[in-house]
Amino acid sequence: MPKVPSRGFSGSEFAARLRAIQAQMETQSLGALLLTTESDIFYFSGFLSQFWQSPTRPWFVVIPASGLPIGVIPEIGVNAMTSEFMTDIRSWPSPHATDDGVSLLAETVLEVLAQSQSCTLGINKGRETHIRMPLNDVESLMARLRSGMPDLAVLDATPAIQAVRMLKSEAEIDKIRYVAQCVSDVFERLFTFAEVGMSDADLFRRFTIECLHAGVDTVSYLVGGAGQQGYDDIISPPSGRRLSAEDVLIFDTGCTFDGYFCDFDRNYGFGGVNDLAKKAHDSVWQATEAGLKAAVPGNTCAQVFSAMHEVLLNAGAMGETVGRYGHGLGIQLTEPPSLTPWENTILREGMVMTLEPGMVYAPGKMMVHEENVVIRAEGPELLSRRAPPELPVKW
Amino acid sequence: MPKVPSRGFSGSEFAARLRAIQAQMETQSLGALLLTTESDIFYFSGFLSQFWQSPTRPWFVVIPASGLPIGVIPEIGVNAMTSEFMTDIRSWPSPHATDDGVSLLAETVLEVLAQSQSCTLGINKGRETHIRMPLNDVESLMARLRSGMPDLAVLDATPAIQAVRMLKSEAEIDKIRYVAQCVSDVFERLFTFAEVGMSDADLFRRFTIECLHAGVDTVSYLVGGAGQQGYDDIISPPSGRRLSAEDVLIFDTGCTFDGYFCDFDRNYGFGGVNDLAKKAHDSVWQATEAGLKAAVPGNTCAQVFSAMHEVLLNAGAMGETVGRYGHGLGIQLTEPPSLTPWENTILREGMVMTLEPGMVYAPGKMMVHEENVVIRAEGPELLSRRAPPELPVKW
Repeated sequence: MPKVPSRGFSGSEFAARLRAIQAQMETQSLGALLLTTESDIFYFSGFLSQFWQSPTRPWFVVIPASGLPIGVIPEIGVNAMTSEFMTDIRSWPSPHATDDGVSLLAETVLEVLAQSQSCTLGINKGRETHIRMPLNDVESLMARLRSGMPDLAVLDATPAIQAVRMLKSEAEIDKIRYVAQCVSDVFERLFTFAEVGMSDADLFRRFTIECLHAGVDTVSYLVGGAGQQGYDDIISPPSGRRLSAEDVLIFDTGCTFDGYFCDFDRNYGFGGVNDLAKKAHDSVWQATEAGLKAAVPGNTCAQVFSAMHEVLLNAGAMGETVGRYGHGLGIQLTEPPSLTPWENTILREGMVMTLEPGMVYAPGKMMVHEENVVIRAEGPELLSRRAPPELPVKW
Repeated sequence: MPKVPSRGFSGSEFAARLRAIQAQMETQSLGALLLTTESDIFYFSGFLSQFWQSPTRPWFVVIPASGLPIGVIPEIGVNAMTSEFMTDIRSWPSPHATDDGVSLLAETVLEVLAQSQSCTLGINKGRETHIRMPLNDVESLMARLRSGMPDLAVLDATPAIQAVRMLKSEAEIDKIRYVAQCVSDVFERLFTFAEVGMSDADLFRRFTIECLHAGVDTVSYLVGGAGQQGYDDIISPPSGRRLSAEDVLIFDTGCTFDGYFCDFDRNYGFGGVNDLAKKAHDSVWQATEAGLKAAVPGNTCAQVFSAMHEVLLNAGAMGETVGRYGHGLGIQLTEPPSLTPWENTILREGMVMTLEPGMVYAPGKMMVHEENVVIRAEGPELLSRRAPPELPVKW
């Protein structure tokens, strides 16, 4: 079993993240940055809680141009968020009849902007983001801010936040490697517990239990599908269908340790799987090899995409429906950047990525393959253990 | 083990939901209703997938004033969403370089509004909601809609959607009851696997495995805390702390079956727990009894709150930090309405609620108790099995 990393982070980790985002803020002249979502708030404050699954209460963190982040949160979270790094936490009793944190947040943002002598607020507006508060409250917040500061400008801070979060520290990488190694253990012994005749619900449940025994904290994401000589859907929960001979099965899982995700998949055959499926597995495996060669610092995401795409085109791919061949990975199951033909983000040391080439190899039959890597000076380091070149088949 | 309900729903269930929301839409003269979040889209289309955990792609469903819902979704989801009920699904290759579904969505909304000869679009703007798409895309969508329909009005459809979703069908209740019964099994035998000396991480993992063995699909939500003679935080993940004598432990879990949640907690003592903690457990148990008596059709949420609050005040509660004494339950861990002093929603047959009285009984010591019920004509039916009146203590 892989060695279990320590939980949490040192204060210096949060200080480094804060320095990095405040440097980004300076380039946009942002006097304050408003965060509203689970991943951004976890990243910059260390606040980790499954309580985000309840949509009832909004949570906010405001990052000033200089100085520590400020929490503006429901009373229920004060003890959990408080740390040596998070000392200024303002709270209100939530849920509230008429004002669920909006006036307290407006007051805090105005105070922070005034202190930094700036009228420019950054918020997430871009790709892969949303604002986690009711739209009525967004409108009310903006009205209060504009009333308190008529010259207010609101800029999109998405690129700034993403640029910081993309580069992982060794402490972050350790957590992702650990959880990827736990799941690699389970994938490698799947045939010891997966059998023809099992319902997919039982198989999902068993796989989850095996991952927990292997050492993950949660099996947050587990999807998969099986079909005769191939599957056509990789995002569905169990349906009750029973595994049968000539099935090709895919499991794709995002397990977590201390809030950090792995995200990769494996394919398996049961009984007489035909050559088309085996050849498709070889193609996506070879495409991943090409991706591993291309995933070096200085190359763009588009270049890594192209390296994999060429292999799949040569293998006769009839298209794909996933829309990309991999993505960033960390405190979300998927993070920017995407491996697409149009993504010009340059790979840098410390980025953690999935390589996920997929193809339709026959009408209604797809094959998707995935590994997790961290970009290193000398080339990618595998965080998952490399899949076998040939589709494993259980007779 | 409780009997496993069937997965999915009949077409008539979705037809009834559609009739109910279209009746609500008529009262607001809405020509179209735009849905962007996992729970609303699952409820009205049946599309269930953990793929929502990836923030990369937006997903939309448009409900017309009459006729079936229309999916506007990434290509990857078309097979998974298609059903006899969801036949009109429009898709685009996502992620997209410049237009992640916005133009296709605008076109669809304008078409639906034109067909219903209406200029009024409903979206979620209210309590407990958010819009799950980038703010830049919200602005771009609104600009496109206003350009195609200068008289466009956008109304808050939150009350309409919540009114429909609050009332559960017997098929929905069966799923919640099943998962609550599975978890009741595990809570009742917690002392067979929880022992002084275990780390909380191991205890969380073991609890999760026991729930899976008991028959749940996922342990989506598991938080808890333990502390000497009481805990002060109920929303945190494991920290590595070891369970020790004189601890009071709480586990609060939202497990799912087929997309439906239970949400309740249980408290346990280890070794010499003092009378203060035992008395606090008695108080929240008695408050729940009062809540059960008050949770009848026709009473408001505020009345149920008051019934519980009176018991806790008489018991010397020093306050509470959760902000409410319970909430709705279904396809989200927490749903409207809330049991607060200001919530005037009237309880109706078929509402599934948690009763969750909590109190601070000493500085830094809280006690929270929770049960799941469905409101029936003759009074609430317990979906969880009633907790024991006395705090269970393991010596």
